[in-house]
Amino acid sequence: MNDIDPTGAVADWWATAVSHMEPGVIELRGRPVQHLIGTTDLTSMIWLMLRGDPPTARQAALLEAALVAAVDHGPQAPSIAIARMTATCGVGLNNAIASGVNALGDAHGGAGQQCVELLTEIIEAQAIGLDLAEATRQVIADRPRYLPGFGHRFHPTDPRREPLLTLVDEAVRDGVVAGDYLRAGRAVEALLAHERSRPVPLNIDGATAIIYAELGFPAPLARGLFVLSRSIGILAHAWEESQQGRRNKGPLPREILPTRSSRHPDEKN
Amino acid sequence: MNDIDPTGAVADWWATAVSHMEPGVIELRGRPVQHLIGTTDLTSMIWLMLRGDPPTARQAALLEAALVAAVDHGPQAPSIAIARMTATCGVGLNNAIASGVNALGDAHGGAGQQCVELLTEIIEAQAIGLDLAEATRQVIADRPRYLPGFGHRFHPTDPRREPLLTLVDEAVRDGVVAGDYLRAGRAVEALLAHERSRPVPLNIDGATAIIYAELGFPAPLARGLFVLSRSIGILAHAWEESQQGRRNKGPLPREILPTRSSRHPDEKN
Amino acid sequence: MNDIDPTGAVADWWATAVSHMEPGVIELRGRPVQHLIGTTDLTSMIWLMLRGDPPTARQAALLEAALVAAVDHGPQAPSIAIARMTATCGVGLNNAIASGVNALGDAHGGAGQQCVELLTEIIEAQAIGLDLAEATRQVIADRPRYLPGFGHRFHPTDPRREPLLTLVDEAVRDGVVAGDYLRAGRAVEALLAHERSRPVPLNIDGATAIIYAELGFPAPLARGLFVLSRSIGILAHAWEESQQGRRNKGPLPREILPTRSSRHPDEKN
Amino acid sequence: MNDIDPTGAVADWWATAVSHMEPGVIELRGRPVQHLIGTTDLTSMIWLMLRGDPPTARQAALLEAALVAAVDHGPQAPSIAIARMTATCGVGLNNAIASGVNALGDAHGGAGQQCVELLTEIIEAQAIGLDLAEATRQVIADRPRYLPGFGHRFHPTDPRREPLLTLVDEAVRDGVVAGDYLRAGRAVEALLAHERSRPVPLNIDGATAIIYAELGFPAPLARGLFVLSRSIGILAHAWEESQQGRRNKGPLPREILPTRSSRHPDEKN
Repeated sequence: MNDIDPTGAVADWWATAVSHMEPGVIELRGRPVQHLIGTTDLTSMIWLMLRGDPPTARQAALLEAALVAAVDHGPQAPSIAIARMTATCGVGLNNAIASGVNALGDAHGGAGQQCVELLTEIIEAQAIGLDLAEATRQVIADRPRYLPGFGHRFHPTDPRREPLLTLVDEAVRDGVVAGDYLRAGRAVEALLAHERSRPVPLNIDGATAIIYAELGFPAPLARGLFVLSRSIGILAHAWEESQQGRRNKGPLPREILPTRSSRHPDEKN
Repeated sequence: MNDIDPTGAVADWWATAVSHMEPGVIELRGRPVQHLIGTTDLTSMIWLMLRGDPPTARQAALLEAALVAAVDHGPQAPSIAIARMTATCGVGLNNAIASGVNALGDAHGGAGQQCVELLTEIIEAQAIGLDLAEATRQVIADRPRYLPGFGHRFHPTDPRREPLLTLVDEAVRDGVVAGDYLRAGRAVEALLAHERSRPVPLNIDGATAIIYAELGFPAPLARGLFVLSRSIGILAHAWEESQQGRRNKGPLPREILPTRSSRHPDEKN
Repeated sequence: MNDIDPTGAVADWWATAVSHMEPGVIELRGRPVQHLIGTTDLTSMIWLMLRGDPPTARQAALLEAALVAAVDHGPQAPSIAIARMTATCGVGLNNAIASGVNALGDAHGGAGQQCVELLTEIIEAQAIGLDLAEATRQVIADRPRYLPGFGHRFHPTDPRREPLLTLVDEAVRDGVVAGDYLRAGRAVEALLAHERSRPVPLNIDGATAIIYAELGFPAPLARGLFVLSRSIGILAHAWEESQQGRRNKGPLPREILPTRSSRHPDEKN
Repeated sequence: MNDIDPTGAVADWWATAVSHMEPGVIELRGRPVQHLIGTTDLTSMIWLMLRGDPPTARQAALLEAALVAAVDHGPQAPSIAIARMTATCGVGLNNAIASGVNALGDAHGGAGQQCVELLTEIIEAQAIGLDLAEATRQVIADRPRYLPGFGHRFHPTDPRREPLLTLVDEAVRDGVVAGDYLRAGRAVEALLAHERSRPVPLNIDGATAIIYAELGFPAPLARGLFVLSRSIGILAHAWEESQQGRRNKGPLPREILPTRSSRHPDEKN
């Protein structure tokens, strides 16, 4: 409150518990920034900023594994291709990263969030008395064929699945996390292995969703954390592209022109 | 001013001459919105919002021609490809348009702004006594080989040049605009025709830059107006793509994987 | 097809009916661009690009009224404030516009799309035999209290409602549009007037949704068209702000610091 | 190369050294992802992706300190306010982060990049024979009054300066980095302390710029790394805001309406 905001209502409009500034003072989640610099690793900083308190070392290690696993999947992914193209258009790296991140929507990065929701439903169905297999069966039955977090159109088995699940197993064994989401995820895998003609294993979205949920992050933060992770790959690609001197890079070599198609049948006039 | 903002300093922080709202009242540049609806065409609305007063019919017609000319140049352009890819990622059309527009930077859409600056330099050199040819020669001499607004790597002659310049000619003839920028643009063309092995005619950025500058828009608005124009094509492409049911469209058909390259020599460790 | 794309599969990946380019040739929806420049108004261009064929003069006039009506609602709207702040951060006008447009999501600009969906449900309920009042009652009954396109927290009556609906009335009278969406919208208004303690009239999202739907645009394009319209206001505000010389404009005057709050109760650790 | 890309030209268009995918294989900078998960910390991953090889433990520690220091500076900063407002507009967290990051332009986050350039000039002037004080004097003399990386309008002394510079001192002492940028930065501080009426110490942009440059990152990556760091704060704020249930949050409490101003004198018609 001061002369121009005597009721404090204006300051209150932007009230926050995340950080606090005064001249000479910067507190992040109540901690002076100078106490964090040099003592806190980046992953613990992410946890602190999102949760309000720092993680234990084991919690941080599990979170870090998930963040490391998802940093990049190459320019086939629209987010990476978009960032690379934007970086050739005469804007800053921040703009290139922004456009890449902007594409991490429900169909590209959102699967983690949806997978947490799916597994949560299974856990809730158990809470009202169903056994795991039956809870899984009932929850899956209501869903369309594609299940978020399971299966990959490119990798028959996602090489990131095994090391991530192993780390969760160890965390469950040591009491770091409870294991409910891990068991639900494996129950879905088992059901799909039985029902489908070929296995539909957990993919990167599913394996990291299990980690985020086991660590207590709400579903939307599965997407938020994926954004932080993938931003690293987006920056690396945007930077590489910006060093190659192309201007206005399009999606195809210049000799190839898009096919002229007739109007799509769904586009009625 | 009111109880929570007694000095008015908070309201002043967001002071604007563009529009004014009160309950039941919407004024755009001082005009009640209900007087504009049904009486004002979209191009005149753009002018009014940017300039504060409405254009004459001839001014609006010239601006409209420039806006229509630049709506689209196909998915070879990164902005269009980016919007189409983003539209498949599970976000709204607004997000797809945003990412397309975000790429209209200095190297993709910014040429109009730079061309206005170039032509302005020539006009200013005339104002201190040089004749047009000499002013042009001196201004060009200081510039790198690529001149914004001139030449096109794809079109030997840009089909939009002729009809746009014809409209400016008519506007000069009828006293709608003064013609200084048009003459400067043609002087650059003439000089380049003489100096280079093949003609380097005005392109869409150059021809529209001339129109925007003749109409009195400052250089940065050449980019701003181009954004409004190209947004139309961006929306059309994002919408078409979203109707085709692809998810996570990458830049290449899925069978083609990016080449594994060695580190770029400029990327030192 | 050519040497590097012998099957045409790569060109096909980017096939489009929106535009076609060859050296020296630009066709928009099959029409050479030089035939459109100087002959086609901007609103008809929007229609042509989205629909594939040009509108009649009356269709264009109705679309134009909707586009003009929604250009701006001042810096209270997050999209406008965001664009103004971004414009002070050392990026291009295209980036400022992009960030403004990016905010036109389900809760800010998305109401038009949702209103088209609501009115479509009412029309479909009529198609299976209910009268309008009963169809409206049943559709509304399943909905939460807030109805997209109806009511305004700021304007008791939105000054844009009356002139827009008058234009639709005239278009129905003259056979330009059928009037189903207009009747459904008014039926909702009538029901709400009866049920609620104070009127909940159509707002700008609702009135423009009726126009877009009457003209045959699918629901998602209600948002797409709103984006084109609001981009005009976004540009005008970003430009005004950029002329005022502020750097890094925050939301509040610098003397006011956000309140330090305790952690939100929903933010569990 | 395959049937649809027999020359490999299409695959080459997207060639990259950052990552490589085959079915079942993900290599990041030539390293199988499964070897990185659980063994590599997040900061080292950032370094690896940007540079091609992993850092030493001391290099990683120094980079980490810079990344931790800059995560947040509260909603006074436009990037944070923008992300918070966007998060209330019915879009995903990825979209909110994107719009926040998009604002980290030349005037907001770009200072680090510019500071690296400034210090590089001083080092280059030394390389041609000037002593540090004279090199600094000459480089500063050509610059406008505001020097990127020095001074803060809010903090008389930035609390992040001291711990960051102490870490660089230790790294110089132990031979981890050479110290040229640190010395140049301190020489600028010393000159400004002498010339100006009050001290103009290194700020967060300057202190982190020194770290990035000492570690060998090119100037544009000072901005890129800042984006990764600030994204953490942006996410934390967007998430907090999204949990508070506001829709369409504007910059001011709803009772305060922006002042109606007259047209800015620079906005000529």
